[in-house]
Amino acid sequence: MSPEESVADREQALTDEVLASFDGTADPRLRLVMQSLVRHLHAFARDVRLSEQEWEAAIGFLTRAGHITDDRRQEFILLSDVLGLSMLTVAINEPKVPEATEATVFGPFFVDESPEIPLGGDIARGAAGTPCHVSGQVRDTDGAPLPGARVDVWEADEDGFYDVQYTDDRSAGRGWLRTGPDGEYRFWSVLPAPYPIPHDGPVGDLLNAAGRGPMRPAHLHFKVTAPGHRTLITHIFLAGDPYLDSDAVFGVKEGLVVETAKHHGGGAPDGSRPHGDWTSLTFDLVLVAEPPTA
Amino acid sequence: MSPEESVADREQALTDEVLASFDGTADPRLRLVMQSLVRHLHAFARDVRLSEQEWEAAIGFLTRAGHITDDRRQEFILLSDVLGLSMLTVAINEPKVPEATEATVFGPFFVDESPEIPLGGDIARGAAGTPCHVSGQVRDTDGAPLPGARVDVWEADEDGFYDVQYTDDRSAGRGWLRTGPDGEYRFWSVLPAPYPIPHDGPVGDLLNAAGRGPMRPAHLHFKVTAPGHRTLITHIFLAGDPYLDSDAVFGVKEGLVVETAKHHGGGAPDGSRPHGDWTSLTFDLVLVAEPPTA
Repeated sequence: MSPEESVADREQALTDEVLASFDGTADPRLRLVMQSLVRHLHAFARDVRLSEQEWEAAIGFLTRAGHITDDRRQEFILLSDVLGLSMLTVAINEPKVPEATEATVFGPFFVDESPEIPLGGDIARGAAGTPCHVSGQVRDTDGAPLPGARVDVWEADEDGFYDVQYTDDRSAGRGWLRTGPDGEYRFWSVLPAPYPIPHDGPVGDLLNAAGRGPMRPAHLHFKVTAPGHRTLITHIFLAGDPYLDSDAVFGVKEGLVVETAKHHGGGAPDGSRPHGDWTSLTFDLVLVAEPPTA
Repeated sequence: MSPEESVADREQALTDEVLASFDGTADPRLRLVMQSLVRHLHAFARDVRLSEQEWEAAIGFLTRAGHITDDRRQEFILLSDVLGLSMLTVAINEPKVPEATEATVFGPFFVDESPEIPLGGDIARGAAGTPCHVSGQVRDTDGAPLPGARVDVWEADEDGFYDVQYTDDRSAGRGWLRTGPDGEYRFWSVLPAPYPIPHDGPVGDLLNAAGRGPMRPAHLHFKVTAPGHRTLITHIFLAGDPYLDSDAVFGVKEGLVVETAKHHGGGAPDGSRPHGDWTSLTFDLVLVAEPPTA
C-alpha cells in the first residue's frame, strides 16, 4: 500500500466510524440527513486539506455569528443567504409547475403581526419614498381567480431600511389585505430602493474578503396564502435596477422582474394621488393547488 | 429535456452562480476553500432534498449553539467534535511518520496560563482522585532524547470535571514541566475518570436524538513543545476503560492506550507516596523534527 493510500484509508476509516455512530438514530429521516451531512462535511475537509488554523478560523466565525445574532439580527440566515443555501432550499422545495409564480428567499425582515389594510389602502404608513401603486390578480395555475386570498407585503423604504431597523418601534412599509371578488389586489406603497444586507458582522467580513458586495436590488416581498393552495413566498424586483445581476443572496429570477411606470399628477388608478410624482406596477401572483391532506 | 433534468439544471445553475460569486476572492486559498464549501454544502442539500422545516431547524440549532457559547463553553467545538470534523482535521494535518506518537483532539479545556511544576512534582494540586505517577521520555523519531522540552498536561478529576468547570476559580489538574537531561519527564497527578462532554445544549440534544452517548473515556491531555520539532497534541487513554470504543469525539487511537499499574503503600518511584493506594503509568512521547522555516 502506498503512503497516500494509507492516509486515505485512515481518513475514510474515521469517516466510516462517525457515520456508524448515527446508525442508531431513531428517526430515519434524521439519520439520513446527519449521515449525508457527515459525508459531505468530511469530503470538504479532505478535499481542501483543511488546516488547523482554518478550522480555528471557522470556529471563531461561527462564534462571532452566534454572538451578533439577537431578536433583530440573524447572522446565520445571512450566512445561508450569501452561500446560496437559502435560495437552493427554495429551489428544492418549490413546486415544479411552469405556470406558477416563482418563489424566492423569505429573508429576515418578515413580522408576524402586521396591520390589515383595505383593498386599495396604503401600506407605506409613513415609510419615505415615491408613492407606488401596486396591483394584480391572484389566481391558480388553471387561471381561476382566488378571491379572499391573503396577501402579505413588506418592503424597505427609499433609504433601504425596513421598519424593524428603525431606531423607534413604529411599523411602516408592511401590511396585509384580502383579494377582491375577481382575485384582484391593489395597494399604495413606496418605490423600494436597493440596500445592503447587514454587513458589519462576520458575514460582511466574508463578503469583503471575497470581493463581493452586500447589495440587494430593490424589491417588494410577498407572501400569498389561499386555502387549498401552496403558500407563495416571493419578491417582485424592479427592471433596470443596477444590482439585478449581483444580488448578494442570489434571489433574482427573470420572471419576477417588472417594469415600473412613472407618472406625474392626476390619473392614479384610484384617483387619490393627483399631485406630484408617483409610479405604478402590476404583477399577477399564480398559486399551485395542493391536494387536501388526509 | 425531462422534468428531472430541468430541475437538476436549475439547481446546478444556482450552484454555479454562487461559485462564480467567489471568483474575485483575492486570497487564492480562501477562494479554493469557499468554493469547495459551497460545492459540498449544495451537494448535501440536494442529496437529502433539504426541506424548509429542516433548514429552519438548522438555523435554530446554530442560533442556540451561538447563544450557549461563552468564555467557558464552546458549543461549536463540541459540534465539530461529535461530527468527527475535529479528529479529521487532526488526521489531515498530522505528520505521516509511523514512529511518531499519534495526535488527537485538543478539546476545549486547555488553559494558556497554567503553573510550572518541577520534574517529579504534582499537577493535581487538590484535584480529587487516586494518585497516579506518570513518566516517560520525550524523544525524536530517530530515538534522540529531547531535554528541555516543554510538557503541558491537563486532566479531569475523578468526578470527570476540569478545574474550569469548578464553581470557584481555583486551578487544579493542570501544569507544565521541562524534560530532564535524558528527555525524561515524570509527575504526580490523579487517575482521570470518564466524563460526559457538556450535553445540556443543542449538541447534547443531537446526541440524544441520534441515540449516542456523551461520554469520553478517561484520559490525560498532553501538549509537547520542543524547538525544531512539530508540537504534539495528544491524550493517553487508560486500558480497560468502558468507553474506549464509543468516545463521543472519536479521539481514541490504539497506540495511545496504556496499561495502568496499581500499587499499595511504599515503593513509589520518588519515594514520596508510601501510604495508601496509588497507580502508575509510563508513556513515551515521540516528536517529529520540522525543517527550519526560511
